[in-house]
Amino acid sequence: MTSNLATNLTAGRLDRARTVLAAQGVDALLLTPGAELRYLTGYDALPLERLTCLVLPVTGDAHLVVPKLERPRADESPAAGLGIAIVDWPETADPNALVASLLNSALGAAPSRIAVADRMWAIHSLALGAALAPATLTPAGPVLRELRMRKDPAELAALRDAAAAIDRVHDRVPQGLQAGRSESEVGRDIAEAIIAEGHVAVNFVIVAGGPNGASPHHDTGERVLQQGDLVVVDIGGTNAAGYCSDSTRTYALGDPGAEALAMYAVLQRAQEASCNSVRPGVTAEGIDAAARDVIAAAGYGDFFVHRTGHGIGLDEHEEPYIVSGNADPVDAGMTFSIEPGIYLPGRFGARIEDIVAVTGDGVERLNRSTRDLVVLD
Amino acid sequence: MTSNLATNLTAGRLDRARTVLAAQGVDALLLTPGAELRYLTGYDALPLERLTCLVLPVTGDAHLVVPKLERPRADESPAAGLGIAIVDWPETADPNALVASLLNSALGAAPSRIAVADRMWAIHSLALGAALAPATLTPAGPVLRELRMRKDPAELAALRDAAAAIDRVHDRVPQGLQAGRSESEVGRDIAEAIIAEGHVAVNFVIVAGGPNGASPHHDTGERVLQQGDLVVVDIGGTNAAGYCSDSTRTYALGDPGAEALAMYAVLQRAQEASCNSVRPGVTAEGIDAAARDVIAAAGYGDFFVHRTGHGIGLDEHEEPYIVSGNADPVDAGMTFSIEPGIYLPGRFGARIEDIVAVTGDGVERLNRSTRDLVVLD
Repeated sequence: MTSNLATNLTAGRLDRARTVLAAQGVDALLLTPGAELRYLTGYDALPLERLTCLVLPVTGDAHLVVPKLERPRADESPAAGLGIAIVDWPETADPNALVASLLNSALGAAPSRIAVADRMWAIHSLALGAALAPATLTPAGPVLRELRMRKDPAELAALRDAAAAIDRVHDRVPQGLQAGRSESEVGRDIAEAIIAEGHVAVNFVIVAGGPNGASPHHDTGERVLQQGDLVVVDIGGTNAAGYCSDSTRTYALGDPGAEALAMYAVLQRAQEASCNSVRPGVTAEGIDAAARDVIAAAGYGDFFVHRTGHGIGLDEHEEPYIVSGNADPVDAGMTFSIEPGIYLPGRFGARIEDIVAVTGDGVERLNRSTRDLVVLD
Repeated sequence: MTSNLATNLTAGRLDRARTVLAAQGVDALLLTPGAELRYLTGYDALPLERLTCLVLPVTGDAHLVVPKLERPRADESPAAGLGIAIVDWPETADPNALVASLLNSALGAAPSRIAVADRMWAIHSLALGAALAPATLTPAGPVLRELRMRKDPAELAALRDAAAAIDRVHDRVPQGLQAGRSESEVGRDIAEAIIAEGHVAVNFVIVAGGPNGASPHHDTGERVLQQGDLVVVDIGGTNAAGYCSDSTRTYALGDPGAEALAMYAVLQRAQEASCNSVRPGVTAEGIDAAARDVIAAAGYGDFFVHRTGHGIGLDEHEEPYIVSGNADPVDAGMTFSIEPGIYLPGRFGARIEDIVAVTGDGVERLNRSTRDLVVLD
């Protein structure tokens, strides 16, 4: 089932990638396991010290180089149905020389510019760079961004599925969020719920109570939650199709006080304004400004210390980035987070995050759980 | 609590790393989030597109470069107590130039040879390489292997904790392993149990039944388990201290037949022989041969298609590798898997995997759940 879906998803993508390679003057794409490999071939392989690598030259045959022990897994994968020849290497061979030889044969000459997976491990990029010297390596992101940023209907369905799963986790958060429990205890319950509600992996669980909420990427720890705390809960996972969820809600353990309530009201207006600003043609930095302006006008401008959002898909963070300086317009099919936050150092913080999809004429919010402050008794 | 443990763990490691840098003629170490950063500083940071990087020159001040929004997390981390200056960069700045400038200042000259984290993402290694040109980048693994391979008592305790947690998961596997359920359904239960029994992350869940068991890295899928199947269950996670578990057991759904039982008996003897061969001074390839010889003598040599094991610690796969061609002797404190397998293509397979630690005069098996074939009614 997963394999058929993936084959549908990937039909035509290899050809489009080659068109972009040619247009950008890149001789080949080398992709180790990760989102780009899965996007182009449907192959969901483990990132390991043993080299697995898609070798996609701008012309000539494509190959998937795999360790011998992963040959059966590769043969069963959608990659095998896409006209990609699978080549395995035994445990004590040099796979980097194999990649170089396949590339030289396909191109009929040594390549000079090669794009590698954005997250390729250095042990692989350095070894491949040495085997292919003097070719220049460049990240694959700019090559594949035009393909990957605009999600097709099957990808949008997979992202809706992931969003609904994380919404169900947020619906369960109040059950375990109590004064007297540590962030870690609450975080473990949430991690279990992330799997139980329809993900195959837990990507991150941030539970940040009281002053810890003022640290946007707080490391969920041993602090015990207190009555009156604001608690930022930012969670995400990956579903069976490979797509990511990511949603933040802020909870209060009893009455958090008038100042926190006033701050939260500003944040909620900012997040709403930013979501409402989304439609095809608006710039990424315009969507950032829509949130930032509301927060700055209320006097909290210095306390919103990060960009408003990031793209999401097979990667939890990908293009487009919703940040000052990104003047690219967004377009139908793009999916990204809108997650302004306000952080008062040493005191408390709050963040609201939805994943949204740009539609033909506006925006669809994929997360639906309440954005009101959830005040628990 | 975690922080104090980490500070104890890391005291002195930075100095030892500098000693190795000097001995190997490496000017600096650049570590993005991952096992090496956690090993040297205790800082458990998220690998992200925003650069976080330890800048450790062979002489001069060490710095931890972090995104501004992660400043509070870095300040709270054990790194802050180790004399490492923390420097943050705002959302729209260039952190690679910052790293180059810090290195040049510390060394009083441009570096010529720099070791980078083995798993540093290509977007970072390529950008850092450009900012530091014409310096040569090399993987940090060979620099840090002599430190990381020999675990200290706190690390051994953390690995015992992880092993006991995954043993408890194997103890629960029979509850959900039934003919009529799919590998995916069983795998989801196991993923939940991995978190519930004391891990903070699920690293992998392989449930490979019947013919799928002949694929060592099978992708747990939609096949429904059948009465008579052998089922290979290879699972692992990471505990709160950052250390990994990894254990494989093979189960049978009812009587798997005489041939499978005979094959399993050979495998069990091979795994036992390999474990029993471990003591300080024995070579890694000798430990591999101890398993391989038993399997080959029984006529299954062509069906054991992978190395016998891999080191384990903060990384799920690290040195030493227990493989033909690795003539390095093992030494007290080293920890690795012993996981021979026999795979009959299209029919069935089996694997038995324990994590072991080399002691002063022999071996300690960290996994204790039964290695007998678990036959379920």
